[in-house]
Amino acid sequence: MEFVNRDIVSIKDFTRPELEYIFEKAKEIEEKGYSRSTLKGKRVGLLFYEPSTRTRMSFDTAAQTLGADTIWFAGVEGTSVMKGETLKDTIETVANYVDVIVMRHPFDGSARWAADVTTKRAKQGLKKVPIVNGGDGKNEHPTQTMLDLYSVQKTQGGIDGLEVALVGDLKYGRTTHSLSYALSMFDTRIDYVAPEALQIPAHVVSFLKQKGIAQTKYSRIEDVIETADVIYMTRIQKERFPDENEYNKVKGVFRIDKSLLSRAKPTMRLMHPLPRVDEIAVDADDDQRSYYFQQAGNGVPVRATLLALIMGAVE
Amino acid sequence: MEFVNRDIVSIKDFTRPELEYIFEKAKEIEEKGYSRSTLKGKRVGLLFYEPSTRTRMSFDTAAQTLGADTIWFAGVEGTSVMKGETLKDTIETVANYVDVIVMRHPFDGSARWAADVTTKRAKQGLKKVPIVNGGDGKNEHPTQTMLDLYSVQKTQGGIDGLEVALVGDLKYGRTTHSLSYALSMFDTRIDYVAPEALQIPAHVVSFLKQKGIAQTKYSRIEDVIETADVIYMTRIQKERFPDENEYNKVKGVFRIDKSLLSRAKPTMRLMHPLPRVDEIAVDADDDQRSYYFQQAGNGVPVRATLLALIMGAVE
Amino acid sequence: MEFVNRDIVSIKDFTRPELEYIFEKAKEIEEKGYSRSTLKGKRVGLLFYEPSTRTRMSFDTAAQTLGADTIWFAGVEGTSVMKGETLKDTIETVANYVDVIVMRHPFDGSARWAADVTTKRAKQGLKKVPIVNGGDGKNEHPTQTMLDLYSVQKTQGGIDGLEVALVGDLKYGRTTHSLSYALSMFDTRIDYVAPEALQIPAHVVSFLKQKGIAQTKYSRIEDVIETADVIYMTRIQKERFPDENEYNKVKGVFRIDKSLLSRAKPTMRLMHPLPRVDEIAVDADDDQRSYYFQQAGNGVPVRATLLALIMGAVE
Repeated sequence: MEFVNRDIVSIKDFTRPELEYIFEKAKEIEEKGYSRSTLKGKRVGLLFYEPSTRTRMSFDTAAQTLGADTIWFAGVEGTSVMKGETLKDTIETVANYVDVIVMRHPFDGSARWAADVTTKRAKQGLKKVPIVNGGDGKNEHPTQTMLDLYSVQKTQGGIDGLEVALVGDLKYGRTTHSLSYALSMFDTRIDYVAPEALQIPAHVVSFLKQKGIAQTKYSRIEDVIETADVIYMTRIQKERFPDENEYNKVKGVFRIDKSLLSRAKPTMRLMHPLPRVDEIAVDADDDQRSYYFQQAGNGVPVRATLLALIMGAVE
Repeated sequence: MEFVNRDIVSIKDFTRPELEYIFEKAKEIEEKGYSRSTLKGKRVGLLFYEPSTRTRMSFDTAAQTLGADTIWFAGVEGTSVMKGETLKDTIETVANYVDVIVMRHPFDGSARWAADVTTKRAKQGLKKVPIVNGGDGKNEHPTQTMLDLYSVQKTQGGIDGLEVALVGDLKYGRTTHSLSYALSMFDTRIDYVAPEALQIPAHVVSFLKQKGIAQTKYSRIEDVIETADVIYMTRIQKERFPDENEYNKVKGVFRIDKSLLSRAKPTMRLMHPLPRVDEIAVDADDDQRSYYFQQAGNGVPVRATLLALIMGAVE
Repeated sequence: MEFVNRDIVSIKDFTRPELEYIFEKAKEIEEKGYSRSTLKGKRVGLLFYEPSTRTRMSFDTAAQTLGADTIWFAGVEGTSVMKGETLKDTIETVANYVDVIVMRHPFDGSARWAADVTTKRAKQGLKKVPIVNGGDGKNEHPTQTMLDLYSVQKTQGGIDGLEVALVGDLKYGRTTHSLSYALSMFDTRIDYVAPEALQIPAHVVSFLKQKGIAQTKYSRIEDVIETADVIYMTRIQKERFPDENEYNKVKGVFRIDKSLLSRAKPTMRLMHPLPRVDEIAVDADDDQRSYYFQQAGNGVPVRATLLALIMGAVE
């Protein structure tokens, strides 16, 4: 298992033992506490070409807890991008300032491209600067998937044998595709709960089938509420729809509230990548099964662990 | 006197002994110097939903002087708010990342609401994250009032027995309402100098009357220039006016310059919450009585003291 | 040679021995490594009224490597400037929070004005806060010139005796004017390669002539490619042109690619202040002569050295 200088671009680049290793280290960091000497003198660049306060702040926190410094921008307003600078040039430049680059960019594949740039740079004798994908368009957001999976393991004591229901926009949401893939490395059963037009794509189903994962499609939350160990709600994202009419038809249909939630197992945990709009009613927040805010908090130990591993500060 | 985990929402939540205690500690911190070990390993979230570079930088400085880390955003552009996230959800999320939240928000009462959210969170067994109100709409900005009062005490050697003149927009300006309230805890005499349409509201006068404070309304700065110990100028804020015509009528009338200032007592100090536009002429800046820039500087020891007190790092 | 509390406003304020001293210290810092105790407890304010992610991040990095804290804003959106605050008042206020102010501002002469404000402040018994000009409109960007010159010295082993070609927009580009001036302190030969309409202004030529510098104008890169020790490309900046037609005429004419570059001496180094648009073809990036990204990286040791010198942390 080699993490030093590794780019974190796609969840598909990781094996089950690697994920388990990351989770073990993240658990250790939560139990033993963060040490500010771990990444002292290191610097993390947070290049957010697209809005994402949650992800940026979570990475900033993760870096700070281990004593790293950060430099950042959020939004292209006020960057050289506005003067026509390419992603390559920005990466080549910022690589001089930092030890790791975390980036969010609206284009699919941009993180891989950036990783190639710093890999080529390393071949010319300069320091390799690993790239952490903080979301590349509709493509991937691997550290979100890791914290999701870490949250499942942390709350259920393990992942094998669980029934996980994915609810909402399963067609356009990159989150559920990545999570499906990650869950398929474990012995899990997956429920897809979505309106027909937004069901999980065939390529995901086909991939998981080859791995022997039991998958069932449902059209109502009621069908899974009593059996699921984890329900993973997703927002129906207006901006992912080509057509606003399609959005309006499904908006608000797949929704969970306190009453519905009370029918679930006491050990079930309700998760959500956030931000939510109204797919989880606010009256559900106080239920012990509601875990989405703590789930967001799990981003800190998971991301801190990743930063430490790729900078070679934790073995 | 209990400060640990306390929310700083309104100046009205504080007693005179509490304010005097904060000022005593702030004075100590100014005299003995800041220690970076005080808040080492702590993190402050600066959530500025509304522009305020001065307040944000002042809090950032205050946190840094004591060794705390900060994470921040300024403006809703680039935040989950744009995707429909509620204040509650942002607070619930960010509470996972930080030890204290300082927030500025355009809605009156938003700071209290946020404080309720983190209090409820604490009741569920999670860490209490105190809220510091950095300005909630037209409502309150308690740390501004504290630094104002600290500036009065610091320059005059005490607050009892002083005549303080409040000048400018006394109707719409939250600053002067809060300062009037705070001054009423001391044995002070207050002059309200404003055009009739912008005079201090009846509810303020009535409240202070019950406390036995001597209050007089004036329509010209000349009426108070020779007797006041402190003159507190305020900007006539265009954005607070429902009608631009009303703004244009009064703009620039209530103005102080070097010549007028020279008639004041040598020990008088001219204050202003900043930014100023033209209510204080630039030629007044060099007068020893002009104190507004140093007043802004007093935000650092006062805010550092508050952060240390509510995080339990200073007794 | 006195650097403590010195404002860094114009490259013209520096003598050759001073520049050589800065470069010697920057080299030392690169060789011995940065010490985080150098500026521990100091704070740098980065006031960027105009977009410049590269310069801001480079200064932020420089400050952090020496252990200083930073506070910053980028763009006037969200600042008191929008409420009508003058530069003077912002400087007077921020001077309370920090030990040094680095600023970028769209107005020519703004950095000198800010320096005058903090100098006057110091005469009133307050701490002098040095101003570092991070670009004031079309006027100056002295730390860019310093890192350019440092890059020349670092790659060529010295500056005397070199032939330096300046290419591109030599009329509107402040970068090449400042660099010409700086090069004139050394025994150099300067080639100006530009279309007639964008040639170097007479006042620059006249100034350098008095200093005995050999200067020649060229209209093609081919004329200098085989003899130059350094080729300094510049972007033809659309925003500096009064007329878009003028821009379109020259755009893309002065361009260098791998094939043309291969005709240069192996020790020649190709530089650029960045961002580039298409004046250097991407296929040139891998050539050993291409130095522009490493040049940007030299901003860190040069700026760190300057910050340390003006705060009296390095002798």
